[in-house]
Amino acid sequence: MSASPHPVSRFGHVELEDMPDDLRKRIEKITEKSGFVPNVFRALARRPAELRAFLDYHDALMDSDVGLSRAERELVVVATSGANNCTYCVVAHGAILRVRAKDAEIADRVATNPWGVELSPRERAIVDLALLVATDSASLTDAELDDARIAGLSEDEIWDVGAITALFAMSNRLAHLTALRPNPEFFLMGRLPRI
Amino acid sequence: MSASPHPVSRFGHVELEDMPDDLRKRIEKITEKSGFVPNVFRALARRPAELRAFLDYHDALMDSDVGLSRAERELVVVATSGANNCTYCVVAHGAILRVRAKDAEIADRVATNPWGVELSPRERAIVDLALLVATDSASLTDAELDDARIAGLSEDEIWDVGAITALFAMSNRLAHLTALRPNPEFFLMGRLPRI
Amino acid sequence: MSASPHPVSRFGHVELEDMPDDLRKRIEKITEKSGFVPNVFRALARRPAELRAFLDYHDALMDSDVGLSRAERELVVVATSGANNCTYCVVAHGAILRVRAKDAEIADRVATNPWGVELSPRERAIVDLALLVATDSASLTDAELDDARIAGLSEDEIWDVGAITALFAMSNRLAHLTALRPNPEFFLMGRLPRI
Amino acid sequence: MSASPHPVSRFGHVELEDMPDDLRKRIEKITEKSGFVPNVFRALARRPAELRAFLDYHDALMDSDVGLSRAERELVVVATSGANNCTYCVVAHGAILRVRAKDAEIADRVATNPWGVELSPRERAIVDLALLVATDSASLTDAELDDARIAGLSEDEIWDVGAITALFAMSNRLAHLTALRPNPEFFLMGRLPRI
Amino acid sequence: MSASPHPVSRFGHVELEDMPDDLRKRIEKITEKSGFVPNVFRALARRPAELRAFLDYHDALMDSDVGLSRAERELVVVATSGANNCTYCVVAHGAILRVRAKDAEIADRVATNPWGVELSPRERAIVDLALLVATDSASLTDAELDDARIAGLSEDEIWDVGAITALFAMSNRLAHLTALRPNPEFFLMGRLPRI
Amino acid sequence: MSASPHPVSRFGHVELEDMPDDLRKRIEKITEKSGFVPNVFRALARRPAELRAFLDYHDALMDSDVGLSRAERELVVVATSGANNCTYCVVAHGAILRVRAKDAEIADRVATNPWGVELSPRERAIVDLALLVATDSASLTDAELDDARIAGLSEDEIWDVGAITALFAMSNRLAHLTALRPNPEFFLMGRLPRI
Repeated sequence: MSASPHPVSRFGHVELEDMPDDLRKRIEKITEKSGFVPNVFRALARRPAELRAFLDYHDALMDSDVGLSRAERELVVVATSGANNCTYCVVAHGAILRVRAKDAEIADRVATNPWGVELSPRERAIVDLALLVATDSASLTDAELDDARIAGLSEDEIWDVGAITALFAMSNRLAHLTALRPNPEFFLMGRLPRI
Repeated sequence: MSASPHPVSRFGHVELEDMPDDLRKRIEKITEKSGFVPNVFRALARRPAELRAFLDYHDALMDSDVGLSRAERELVVVATSGANNCTYCVVAHGAILRVRAKDAEIADRVATNPWGVELSPRERAIVDLALLVATDSASLTDAELDDARIAGLSEDEIWDVGAITALFAMSNRLAHLTALRPNPEFFLMGRLPRI
Repeated sequence: MSASPHPVSRFGHVELEDMPDDLRKRIEKITEKSGFVPNVFRALARRPAELRAFLDYHDALMDSDVGLSRAERELVVVATSGANNCTYCVVAHGAILRVRAKDAEIADRVATNPWGVELSPRERAIVDLALLVATDSASLTDAELDDARIAGLSEDEIWDVGAITALFAMSNRLAHLTALRPNPEFFLMGRLPRI
Repeated sequence: MSASPHPVSRFGHVELEDMPDDLRKRIEKITEKSGFVPNVFRALARRPAELRAFLDYHDALMDSDVGLSRAERELVVVATSGANNCTYCVVAHGAILRVRAKDAEIADRVATNPWGVELSPRERAIVDLALLVATDSASLTDAELDDARIAGLSEDEIWDVGAITALFAMSNRLAHLTALRPNPEFFLMGRLPRI
Repeated sequence: MSASPHPVSRFGHVELEDMPDDLRKRIEKITEKSGFVPNVFRALARRPAELRAFLDYHDALMDSDVGLSRAERELVVVATSGANNCTYCVVAHGAILRVRAKDAEIADRVATNPWGVELSPRERAIVDLALLVATDSASLTDAELDDARIAGLSEDEIWDVGAITALFAMSNRLAHLTALRPNPEFFLMGRLPRI
Repeated sequence: MSASPHPVSRFGHVELEDMPDDLRKRIEKITEKSGFVPNVFRALARRPAELRAFLDYHDALMDSDVGLSRAERELVVVATSGANNCTYCVVAHGAILRVRAKDAEIADRVATNPWGVELSPRERAIVDLALLVATDSASLTDAELDDARIAGLSEDEIWDVGAITALFAMSNRLAHLTALRPNPEFFLMGRLPRI
């Protein structure tokens, strides 16, 4: 409710041209697709070694269509980031979820109420497991994994759901630590019908 | 993530033409402005007497510029509906907040993390009081009201913050009871620059 | 533990004779039955339009014997007001519950431990649904409504349980906002055998 | 809401005449004052050695006027038993609190909302310390004890508040374990002016 | 992470030779076995009558092999003291559990995550009931006791689980109240193979 | 309480000789120091790309003496893993903390009650910030960072505390997902005086 410019993060940020070569090239490739540099990279670049590990972890878990679909992977991110009240991840990955699921409403509905949102049985099993790992992983037992198995998830899909949730448990906390601000472009992405 | 049509509510709904005359006329006026019948009215019309009381309460608290501004009133609704994980109210009142605050980002940021979102001191005092009334009203003491007074809120503004929060404590629960679905129009409202 | 007089509410109150005519007449009718003006009306009369809507909502949901009995409606109020730690509603509606259920103990037992109190299966289903709507409505799914249906509740009875709970989610918060004090008469009402 | 007789406890009970001599004599003395055998003794008498230890602990902490007054000791019991939702202790010790504080309202107000009830600064310090020990003792630090000291509590009074809270942490759980039912006499005790 | 000496408790302590005769003799017997005076006795001796009742209660519940084995009794203590974050009881009773269960790892695993630790079905039923009584006893119903019965627990074993949990609900809070420090000897006890 | 062998993880594991060359060499170096292969590496090796990113992230944050000392870094891990009830991380990093802090008791005390354990003001500020990021990062504001600054932490030290907490938010969840079992060697490490 203020027109004043907001910083990328409370720890400042690094512009693309000031990043180490390998990181700059890697993030330029992402930028070519999206048209802008997602703020998370500009904020984490304060620590190049950590950003490299973050990107490697992210790519290993999110850039795959084996097992979980890409839309399902984003569903895990948006549901757990909503449960964790992480604005950056809800807005940025909500945008990606809208694009990948080709559904303009799904991200807002999942992020606001991941417990009650209507989903297919497979999606519900994915989200229920993710929410448990996100908010109360110590109580996870074989019984909950069996629920996921009954809904048809394979062992590797269960690993993916749990590991993506774990990665964004980290990512949500980094966003809160740095008061990371979503790029304005994310808010509208995937909301308008493609012409 | 499904193309199948979703019902307005799990208790069905009443179309405008089937409502009692007084309710139909009253809601038609709202529809003239918005261009569509908000689903909350179609769902609650199952019980005309309750819908009348709901509209009266809503108008008494939300259609006033004395004390709290209209944008501030919507800020209370979006912050507490976010804390209550109410999709209908976050999406519908998020749209109104975007319009009234002339800010395309504010609703998503407030709804996702009402505790951490950056606000002016007056807005922060409003939201903090609202969140306390929404989530732990039994522990409210004069000390918390003094915090609001120090931030400049008058006695009537404090009443407004508390009473709007209380009204949407009811409204959020009715939305959850009925599995109320936001109209598709709300999702995009206030996100595009007016031409 | 102090003999000093306590105010009706931290926002002051309006005596019956200073209320607008319609409200005064309406509350006088209630007073004829009870013998005193319940403090909630004196406190909310600061805002006549809000008090009118409150009374309308209350009458629509609480003054009916269709579906839920009047004792069952009060059971919902006392159980959820106990879970919300609302002294005014527990004391005032506890009194009404004692009278309607003709049971001197039920209110204290339900208000103190609504989760564990021994109830009939129908009452337990009513209270369980009410407690879920009161404390975690976002997680309500069809499964919980099915539990209520299996216990014999009709669709309209389910609506009543949910809507009464929602109304007192509002009412409890208004009582906490205003530090509303129960009239001394409520504490003893329904505790003595009628002679 | 049922006229059927309820058992004293879900583990049965022992009548006074079937107790070991020492326990019978000890409880007869209590009964002389109250006019009935409090159900807690009939339920715990299943295990005489445990009942003896319980009575010894109780007498050591509750039957003393050194430091905390007897009314203040009961205030700790009612506040923490309310926070723990223990019907037996709220009803039975609520009765004793009414008698000792000569206040017909205090028990219902403290038990329903121990956080928000209006109390003197000394009583508030006592209740705040008790609630912390009851619900989150692991986070207790010297800072909270200093708050109690500033309100005028001595080291021994602080010990008493903490130890009484601890004793009823046990007692509340035993009442819940056994589904202990308050004697009907407790509900009305201390509510009527003495003639 | 400091070499400075730490006090036994924040309320001081009483050395064995300064205790009343009966307590000194009683604790000397314990000391003969363990080789040192457990700090809990030195701290609680500030109040001899309370310490006597504490010892009596403890002996009645912990020094018996009827029903629950001694290792199972310690399992209840370590699981609930872990859930209550009580360092003294986790360290001291963890030591006893290691000795009684002849298992160098069990105490650390149970105390850190009593919900998820792998146990036999009987042990799991014991720990589940204990955790419910420790953290949410108000919601205990016959259904949970039936789960314990199905796992083979007798009525007296159920009482033991609940009563031991209740006793350590008190004990954990006393340890937190007094900032009770475990004796250094407890940390290593039962970790090394006996030669 | 069972002598049967337990698996490393519920998803199986990979022995050192079956890992990709780069991972095998990297982990062999760790093994040279510790004398055994920590189970976390054998479990995560199911996914070599994820294990590489995990190791990179870990080394970037944990193998540095700039700013936070190594003992302080382990203090963050043990405190937050305790709050998250993660047995693997408490046992394994508890061992490392004992070694680095040269303190046989610190790990058990911090892991069991990170809120109440006595620490130096600098350590308390580190642990308080870590616990907030671990359990409620959405509510983190500049006020909490200012508390850390007042205790003398630099911006980079604050980042380290937050980022280590975030990394172990991930790590704890992976351990729970896989039911990861600590190597027996960790339980005793650092408990005996070096001869």
